Amino acid sequence: MDLMEYLDSTQKQVDRMIDRFFGDEFLELGKASAHLLLAGGKRLRPAVVMLAADAVKRGSSDEVMPAALALELTHSFTLIHDDIMDSDAFRRGVPTVHTKWDEPTAILAGDVLYARAFEFISIAEASDNAKVRAISMLAAACVEICNGQHMDMSFEKRNDVTVGEYLEMVSKKTGALYAASAGIGSILAGGNAVKTHALYHYGLYTGMAFQIQDDLIDIMTTPEKSGKDRASDIREGKQTLITLKAKEKGLDLSEYRRELTDKEIDELIERLASLGVIREVRDTALELVEKGKEIVSILPDSEAKRLLIDIGDYFVTRGY
Amino acid sequence: MDLMEYLDSTQKQVDRMIDRFFGDEFLELGKASAHLLLAGGKRLRPAVVMLAADAVKRGSSDEVMPAALALELTHSFTLIHDDIMDSDAFRRGVPTVHTKWDEPTAILAGDVLYARAFEFISIAEASDNAKVRAISMLAAACVEICNGQHMDMSFEKRNDVTVGEYLEMVSKKTGALYAASAGIGSILAGGNAVKTHALYHYGLYTGMAFQIQDDLIDIMTTPEKSGKDRASDIREGKQTLITLKAKEKGLDLSEYRRELTDKEIDELIERLASLGVIREVRDTALELVEKGKEIVSILPDSEAKRLLIDIGDYFVTRGY
Repeated sequence: MDLMEYLDSTQKQVDRMIDRFFGDEFLELGKASAHLLLAGGKRLRPAVVMLAADAVKRGSSDEVMPAALALELTHSFTLIHDDIMDSDAFRRGVPTVHTKWDEPTAILAGDVLYARAFEFISIAEASDNAKVRAISMLAAACVEICNGQHMDMSFEKRNDVTVGEYLEMVSKKTGALYAASAGIGSILAGGNAVKTHALYHYGLYTGMAFQIQDDLIDIMTTPEKSGKDRASDIREGKQTLITLKAKEKGLDLSEYRRELTDKEIDELIERLASLGVIREVRDTALELVEKGKEIVSILPDSEAKRLLIDIGDYFVTRGY
Repeated sequence: MDLMEYLDSTQKQVDRMIDRFFGDEFLELGKASAHLLLAGGKRLRPAVVMLAADAVKRGSSDEVMPAALALELTHSFTLIHDDIMDSDAFRRGVPTVHTKWDEPTAILAGDVLYARAFEFISIAEASDNAKVRAISMLAAACVEICNGQHMDMSFEKRNDVTVGEYLEMVSKKTGALYAASAGIGSILAGGNAVKTHALYHYGLYTGMAFQIQDDLIDIMTTPEKSGKDRASDIREGKQTLITLKAKEKGLDLSEYRRELTDKEIDELIERLASLGVIREVRDTALELVEKGKEIVSILPDSEAKRLLIDIGDYFVTRGY
């Protein structure tokens, strides 16, 4: 099976589970919790959970489905809370939870999904010992994500952020959940410490690359494809690897913290390209993916392993 | 040992653990997470975890200490998020987290404690099977608490709340965490389904009584003792069992939704007393405690069982 077919089929599987467990909420708070989940998504973290499980023990992806859903719930909970913190009004083409309802409801809606993530891991088909370790890994990832989000917010008030700090932030904010996805898939499928370690770090590095690609997509992709305004990071003064690398080369992007015309954005991209910024940022993402692919190469060959490698490549080639 | 001595000693034990794990936070977000925990508290939920464990298996309270801490962390996380939703500026004599830091930090600080609660259960000394069931029970309790808080907020916009709805809200918002405290103590100590069911419902009923007593304390206790302004619930127009019972007797407390003098509060209490409201509310709390005590009576006699019964009485006799 090729990767796009695989992702398409797991997406449908996850969508069906979400519909089954969250499609028919009775309470208003339940509807608020389900809102973003039902608005769609690529369901990449569940795919990584299932592939990691299959790479460790062929055919175990069905057994870890509840855990795959748990990782999507965790992702959705962080989006709901992040949208409050960032005052974002739209996501996935729908109003964010705190916009459609209110802030208190959005805080609680995230809190509900958070708990349900742990509930769903506890009902996966796996040994109790594996479940306890998986729960512990998810909890640790959640702490990391919070620290990453807090770092990211603190960056907005600083103008001396280093590339090292940025990479640390990305490893926590985005890497930790992909790491936990692959690690939990491995643990629940009975993977030993070496395999779990490899898969965890595969998720960490490719997850970081995923975020850097997101930063590139923000300026390179048209709004029709990406679903959000082009160059929103730059217009909002966010610190990304692009702004940090540009700064190293003497180009201060903070002067672009304002409304930009398409022409200005095109000129800016050209300038970033001629300074070598785009290439360096892309290289960083590619290097991280290579690290992830290398570390996962210790696993015995399988279709799942090949698809994990393909996902790494997909993370840094996707255009939206 | 008498109950006050016991509560005093478990409080010190929990305080020491909190100090060990949260007293020396390096990151700003860690400090924000630890802020309310370090501000003190009676640590009643940890005491219930430990007593339930001891009632099931004598001497097992040390083994469940991490889980006892987990229940306090869960309580603290709900307080941090509730304070944001209710816009409360002070608690336990210190500024609330969103006041001392900011709202985004407070959301994240709560989210960090949430994850760490699950981490701490996973390191309790118990069988893996027991830990998975305990984690599942904690997760379910968290969903209940969120639903209870959402119900409570929705009550503020309604004037047709029934006593039944109020009791349902209290069972979720406060009862569920006491229920989980006793249930988790039992599960981790190896309690069978009958004992765990009994202890869970003991926690549920006495926890509900605890909240009703809180409502009474709000109007009956002087600010010096309770640490908050007298009759704040009535001045803020909150729906409690007192306002609902008063309404049944034709006294609409919404006209008191304003600044009140001490004299006005004293007169109001007298009126509530002469209408029989105070007695009826107190009776409801006492009935719940009796239900809790009755259900826990199926356990074999032990000092822990006696202390659990004493805690029930303490919940509805305490003045602050």
